[in-house]
Amino acid sequence: MAQITDLTRDRCETECLHPEVVRPLLGAVMSRVDAEGSASVFALLADGSRARLLHALALANELCVCDLALIVGISQSAISHQLRLLRDRRIVSRRKVGRIVYYRLFDEHVRDLLAQGARHAREERRAARRKAS
Amino acid sequence: MAQITDLTRDRCETECLHPEVVRPLLGAVMSRVDAEGSASVFALLADGSRARLLHALALANELCVCDLALIVGISQSAISHQLRLLRDRRIVSRRKVGRIVYYRLFDEHVRDLLAQGARHAREERRAARRKAS
Repeated sequence: MAQITDLTRDRCETECLHPEVVRPLLGAVMSRVDAEGSASVFALLADGSRARLLHALALANELCVCDLALIVGISQSAISHQLRLLRDRRIVSRRKVGRIVYYRLFDEHVRDLLAQGARHAREERRAARRKAS
Repeated sequence: MAQITDLTRDRCETECLHPEVVRPLLGAVMSRVDAEGSASVFALLADGSRARLLHALALANELCVCDLALIVGISQSAISHQLRLLRDRRIVSRRKVGRIVYYRLFDEHVRDLLAQGARHAREERRAARRKAS
């Protein structure tokens, strides 16, 4: 395990190194490339306007661009830009009916991902309130 | 519904506005403050080193700081900084046993959130490969 030797060189004086724990994990933890991919999904969702837009789609199942712009309270050109980004990354999908373009969440996994993020934010707020009181 | 009138002023010429769809959603979509909270959870996870660190914790259940630094391949001081941020935001929790500090994911919701992000990134890569072939 040359990798362990190389990596520990700077910190052999530490008291809590467990090679038997570390060894199997070195090969199992996601690669840096995969980690950047995962981080990039979260980065895409790290925007307040997108959070509201996606929440509207989660509530309504499907919405046309005009309705969506109105609900989120941003311009149609701004929302079109956001929707394009989200569509390129498979967060939303669209269908066109005549001159109307409808958007929805891409799938149930996206819905879960958004719900878990919102849930965590709510729990953070609750914990902060408990701490303050 | 003064809000609808105000917001539609710039785009009454559009053909696909459905007040009956929009009206109930205006009061139901998350507030801007809550949306920023949700976005901020995702922003915290939008980092490749944190993604690997959290994946290691997801695999191992619990790890001491030294082992974690070794697995992720960053310095102990860098990983301590990351862990503090993640602990403040209830993504990880810790327990101290003598001179050893152990970290784990905060709860099963955090585990799900991370798994959904990683899953989405994998599906994106698969779709990109299909498109390229």
